[in-house]
Amino acid sequence: MQIKVSKAAIEEASKKLSNWGRWGDEDQIGTLNFVTPDLVQRAASLVKKGKVFGMGIPLNGNGPQSGLFGGRWNPIHTMLATGTDAIAGVQDDVNHMRYADDAINMPVQAATHWDSLGHVFHHDKMYNGHNAKYVDSRGVHRLGIEHTRDRMVGRGVLLDVARYKGVDSLEDGYGISNEELDAVAAKQGVKIQKGDFVIIRTGHMERCLANGSWGAYAGGDAPGVKFENCYWCHEKEIAAICSDTWGVEVRPNETSEVNQPWHWIVIPAMGLTMGEIFYVKELAEDCAADGVYEFMFAGPPLVITGGTGSPINPLAIK
Amino acid sequence: MQIKVSKAAIEEASKKLSNWGRWGDEDQIGTLNFVTPDLVQRAASLVKKGKVFGMGIPLNGNGPQSGLFGGRWNPIHTMLATGTDAIAGVQDDVNHMRYADDAINMPVQAATHWDSLGHVFHHDKMYNGHNAKYVDSRGVHRLGIEHTRDRMVGRGVLLDVARYKGVDSLEDGYGISNEELDAVAAKQGVKIQKGDFVIIRTGHMERCLANGSWGAYAGGDAPGVKFENCYWCHEKEIAAICSDTWGVEVRPNETSEVNQPWHWIVIPAMGLTMGEIFYVKELAEDCAADGVYEFMFAGPPLVITGGTGSPINPLAIK
Amino acid sequence: MQIKVSKAAIEEASKKLSNWGRWGDEDQIGTLNFVTPDLVQRAASLVKKGKVFGMGIPLNGNGPQSGLFGGRWNPIHTMLATGTDAIAGVQDDVNHMRYADDAINMPVQAATHWDSLGHVFHHDKMYNGHNAKYVDSRGVHRLGIEHTRDRMVGRGVLLDVARYKGVDSLEDGYGISNEELDAVAAKQGVKIQKGDFVIIRTGHMERCLANGSWGAYAGGDAPGVKFENCYWCHEKEIAAICSDTWGVEVRPNETSEVNQPWHWIVIPAMGLTMGEIFYVKELAEDCAADGVYEFMFAGPPLVITGGTGSPINPLAIK
Amino acid sequence: MQIKVSKAAIEEASKKLSNWGRWGDEDQIGTLNFVTPDLVQRAASLVKKGKVFGMGIPLNGNGPQSGLFGGRWNPIHTMLATGTDAIAGVQDDVNHMRYADDAINMPVQAATHWDSLGHVFHHDKMYNGHNAKYVDSRGVHRLGIEHTRDRMVGRGVLLDVARYKGVDSLEDGYGISNEELDAVAAKQGVKIQKGDFVIIRTGHMERCLANGSWGAYAGGDAPGVKFENCYWCHEKEIAAICSDTWGVEVRPNETSEVNQPWHWIVIPAMGLTMGEIFYVKELAEDCAADGVYEFMFAGPPLVITGGTGSPINPLAIK
Repeated sequence: MQIKVSKAAIEEASKKLSNWGRWGDEDQIGTLNFVTPDLVQRAASLVKKGKVFGMGIPLNGNGPQSGLFGGRWNPIHTMLATGTDAIAGVQDDVNHMRYADDAINMPVQAATHWDSLGHVFHHDKMYNGHNAKYVDSRGVHRLGIEHTRDRMVGRGVLLDVARYKGVDSLEDGYGISNEELDAVAAKQGVKIQKGDFVIIRTGHMERCLANGSWGAYAGGDAPGVKFENCYWCHEKEIAAICSDTWGVEVRPNETSEVNQPWHWIVIPAMGLTMGEIFYVKELAEDCAADGVYEFMFAGPPLVITGGTGSPINPLAIK
Repeated sequence: MQIKVSKAAIEEASKKLSNWGRWGDEDQIGTLNFVTPDLVQRAASLVKKGKVFGMGIPLNGNGPQSGLFGGRWNPIHTMLATGTDAIAGVQDDVNHMRYADDAINMPVQAATHWDSLGHVFHHDKMYNGHNAKYVDSRGVHRLGIEHTRDRMVGRGVLLDVARYKGVDSLEDGYGISNEELDAVAAKQGVKIQKGDFVIIRTGHMERCLANGSWGAYAGGDAPGVKFENCYWCHEKEIAAICSDTWGVEVRPNETSEVNQPWHWIVIPAMGLTMGEIFYVKELAEDCAADGVYEFMFAGPPLVITGGTGSPINPLAIK
Repeated sequence: MQIKVSKAAIEEASKKLSNWGRWGDEDQIGTLNFVTPDLVQRAASLVKKGKVFGMGIPLNGNGPQSGLFGGRWNPIHTMLATGTDAIAGVQDDVNHMRYADDAINMPVQAATHWDSLGHVFHHDKMYNGHNAKYVDSRGVHRLGIEHTRDRMVGRGVLLDVARYKGVDSLEDGYGISNEELDAVAAKQGVKIQKGDFVIIRTGHMERCLANGSWGAYAGGDAPGVKFENCYWCHEKEIAAICSDTWGVEVRPNETSEVNQPWHWIVIPAMGLTMGEIFYVKELAEDCAADGVYEFMFAGPPLVITGGTGSPINPLAIK
Repeated sequence: MQIKVSKAAIEEASKKLSNWGRWGDEDQIGTLNFVTPDLVQRAASLVKKGKVFGMGIPLNGNGPQSGLFGGRWNPIHTMLATGTDAIAGVQDDVNHMRYADDAINMPVQAATHWDSLGHVFHHDKMYNGHNAKYVDSRGVHRLGIEHTRDRMVGRGVLLDVARYKGVDSLEDGYGISNEELDAVAAKQGVKIQKGDFVIIRTGHMERCLANGSWGAYAGGDAPGVKFENCYWCHEKEIAAICSDTWGVEVRPNETSEVNQPWHWIVIPAMGLTMGEIFYVKELAEDCAADGVYEFMFAGPPLVITGGTGSPINPLAIK
C-alpha cells in the first residue's frame, strides 16, 4: 500500500476499517471475538516441547519509563514486612509468624502490558461508539480490561522482522510495511490466521538491554509498523498485535498532524487488542533454532476494574 | 493422620518434609521443579473444549482487605488521563492524541495471588537455608517471585470439597483432612499426580459474594486444610496448592501457639508454591457438569523483582 | 436569616456573594487577600504565653476515611529503609550509613487539610470565572493550593459552639445559625474581624475519639454551619473558615436538591478558603481556661503543584 | 577546629556531644527541648513587617529526586475527580456536586522536609539509647516525627554564607567551618542563641533552579557544613539546623570511611532536628535588603505517625 498519512487518511481508515456494531452494540472486546473455542483448542495442540517463555519484563525501579510520556513512572515496590524485621524479633509477639509482605504501585502501561479498548479515543468516541465520557477519574466504565479476563488465549505467531533483515535491531524510524510482514511470514513458513495473537520483533528492546540503558525507549522514537498496518490487521482478522517496542507503530510517526496515527484506528475503529513492551529474546532464539514460529499464547490480564490496560507476563508455550 | 499441632509438631514436620538442597543450594523455586517439560506438554493435551476460566478476582476498592492482616489495603486505581479530559479538548494541543491512562497501587497479596518462597520464614531462615536477612526494605533478594516467571504452567486439578460435602460452602473452622482430599479425588475420578497445580474449593469466597460482603474473609476465620496437609502435599509431590480462601489453611488454627502453622512448613521447609483467593465458581460448575476435574493451568506471575508474591489472574483451560 | 435552601437559593447567593473580579481577573487566592501584612504583624502580637497547639490529626491507617466519600483512603505509610535492616547489617556495605526512610501516600483531603479554590465548581466554572476544564487529570491548573504557600498566617479565632451550648458535642444534623455564631463570639468576648481565620468547634471529632471510632465521620452526617453561613462569612470578610468536622457545613444538608449547598457558594462564588478535620481539643480547653479566644494562626500548606488542597498541621500560637 | 574525620573521630564526637538522658529517658525530641515558651513568645515579637516567606519547594514530578539516594522518587500527584469530569456531566447524578479531588504519594524526605530523630542510627542505637529495632516495616515506633507536632516554632536565623562569600552559590565540596559561620553571623549583626532554628544558605538550590535542572542535587555532591559543625551546634545549643541543600553537610564527605559522618553525630548522639531542601531565595534577598537576619520561624510537620520525617512548607515571618 502507499498511504500519505494525514488526518484525512485517518478519517478514511476510520470508516473503512470500523468494526463498530460487528459483534453487537454491547460488545466490549472487539477483535478478541475472533478467537473461538476451537481456536483455543487448536492453539493448545501446538504445545510440542513443553517449553514456556515468559514475555514480561521485570517490574522494578529500573524500568523503561523516563518521563517522556504522560507522567508515567517506573514500578515502585515497597515492603510491608521483612526478614530483617523477623530476625530482629519484632514480629514474634505481634504476628506469631515470621513473614514478609510488599506492595506494588505502577501505571498499568509502564512495563509489559495490554491496552484495553478504552485507552484511545477518536474525537469524542471509543470503540463501538461508546461515548468517551464513560472514561472519567473513577475509571474506564466501558471497554475496561476486565472484559478480557478469559479471552487472552489462542495461537501466537512471532514475526521476527529484525532477524529477517539480518540485524540485531531495526533502527528507530524504520517503518515496517505490510508487504514486509507478509515476506517475513513466508520466509518463516508460517501463515497468519484469523484470531491470531501476532507478535512483532524489532529488536528495539534487546538493543536497549544490550546498551544497559532504556534511554528514550518509552515515549521516544522506535522502529515499528507503518500506518498501513491497520489495513493488514483488518484483512487478516487477527485478535491482537504485540511488539517489543513501547507502542508498536513507527516513530517518528509518518505525519506530524497527529500523534500515533495507527493507534487512532486500531483501538477506536477496529477494537484491536494491543500488547506492548514484550520481551521476546529467548522466544525468538528458540523459533530461529527449531524453525517453528507458532505456539500457544496465554497472556491473562489482571482483572483491573475499569483499567485502560494491565501489566502482564504473557506466555508463549511451544 | 492424627497430629497434635504445636511448636513441636512444626519442628518435626520442618525436618521430615524439608526440601532444602533437594534441587541444589541455589534453587529458588522449590516444588515448581516437579513440573517438567513433558508435564507441560501433557497439560496442554488436556485442552479439549477450548474453554477458558479466569480465576482472578476484580481489582478495585471493593476488594477483600478489611485491615485485619498486616496493613494490607484494597487496590487503589487512579486515572492519569481520561475521556472527560479528551472531550474537554485539553489533550489536543498537548498530546495530539485523545487517550486514557491509569495506575494501580496494591499489596501484591491483596487479591488473587501467588506467594513466593520468600514470604514466610522459619526462625531466621527461608526455604533452602537462605538467611532471612536477604529480605529487607529493598525487596526479597532470594526466592523472589521473579524466579517463577516461566514456571507456572502445568496440569491443574480441582478438588471441590464443598460440592463433595453437598454444601455451598464449608464453614469457617472446618479443617479438611488428607483422607478427605483423597476421597474427593476418588469421587471425582481424578488422581493427583506429581507436578500438579491443585486447587481446593471450599466455597468460602462464593459465600462472601452471595452475602454481598467480604466481611472478615481476608485475615479472619476460614475453612481450609488441616496442618497434616503438609504431609499430603509432600507425598504427592505437587507443584502448587491453591484455594478460594485467603490462606489455604483452616482458621481458627489448630493451635494457639503460633499463627498459621501449615504456612511454617510448606513455604520455608518444602518450598511449596501457594495460590490464594482464587475465584473458581464457573470452573467448578463446569467440572461438575462434564465430570472432568483436570485441565491445563497457566498462571503467570507479574515479574516483580524481589516480590513476596504477585497479583495474578490464573487460567484454567479445558 | 431564614433561607429555604434550594437550587434557587444557591443561584441567588452565588450572585449576591460573588467575589469574582474583586481582586483582579488573575486572582488565585480569594478571601486570603483580606490578610494584609499589618494583620499578620498584629496576629503575631497576640502571642503572649508562647504556647503552641498543633491542630493536625495523626496520619496513619486508622484515619477517618471509611469509603463514604469519593474513593478517599486513609494515609498509607510505607518504609523504604528500617532500623531492622540496619541491625541486620544489610546497609553497611551498600549505604555506609545506618538509616531509616519512608513514604506517605494519601488523598490530600483525607485528614486535616485545606481546600484550594479549585476544589468545587459551580456549573462549568471555578472561582473568579476560571473554566473548570483547567482542572484535568494532570492537576488543578488554576487556583491550585500552591498559590497560598505564604498566605496562611493571620489572626485566628476559635468559636467554641459546643462549649457555648454546654455539650461535649453538637449532634449530627445540628445546624449552626449566624445568630448563634454571633452569640458565641459575644459570650467569648471576642469580635470577628476582617481577615480572620475562624475555627468552629462542634465537638464532633472529640466525640469520635472518645468513642474510639471514626464511624461515618468522613462523608457522613455532622453538626455544622447552616447554608446561611455563607452570608455571614461574606459580611465579616473573613479569610478562612475551619472546623473540627469533615466538611464545615451541617449534614444532612438543608436540601436534598444538591449535595453540600454551602460549598457551592463559599468556594466558587466567594473564593473562601476552608479548613477541615481540625483537631482543637487542647486549644479549646486552653481558651476556656484563660478566656482568650484569639491567637496567632499559622497553617502553611504543602506546596502541592495543582493540588485541590493540602494535608496540614496548622498551628494556633497563644 | 581541625578534625581529621574518621570512624575514630565519629566515636569521639558521639561520646562528647551525646545528649542521651539529658531530657530524661523517655525524651523523644532532643534539642527541640531548648525551645521554651518564652522563646516562642520572643520569636513572635520579631514579626515587624508582617511579611511571610514559604520555604517549601513545589511538590510535583519535576522535583529533585533523580534516583541517586535510597530509591526515593519525586512526588506523584494523581487526581481522583476533575473539572473535566464535572463539565462532562458525569458527577451530577452520582455526587450531586461538581468537584475535584486528588492524592499525593511521596517519600517524606523527597522535597523540603524535617528529619525525625529516628532517621539515622549509630551502631544498633538511636538517639537517647533507643534500640534501632523499634524502627521496622510498620514505622518508627520511637522518635517519630509525630512527637514534634507542636514544637517547630521559635526564633529563626538565616546565615547567608553564599552572600558573605560574595558568590551566587558555594561550590560543591566547599566545607563551611565553624569559624566561618561565626564570621557570617558577626558580619550580619546577628547572634546565635539557645533554641534557635538556624538556616544556612549555600546557594546550591538556586544554582540548580538557575540552571533549569536539579542534576545530582539530591544525593550528590554539595557545599555544606564540615564535620566539626556538630561541635558548633552542640555549643550553641540550637534547636535545629536547616539548609538549602539536600543534606546540610559537605559532599564529597571529609572521609571515605563512612557516608555522611556529620549525620552520625547530630541525629543519634545529639538529637538535633535537621531541615533540608529549604527554599530561601526571597528570604535571603529580604534579609540582605533590610539587614535583619532573625525572624519568627514556624515549620509544623505533618503528624505522620512513625515518620522518619515530614514534608513541610516552613515559614519565616518578619
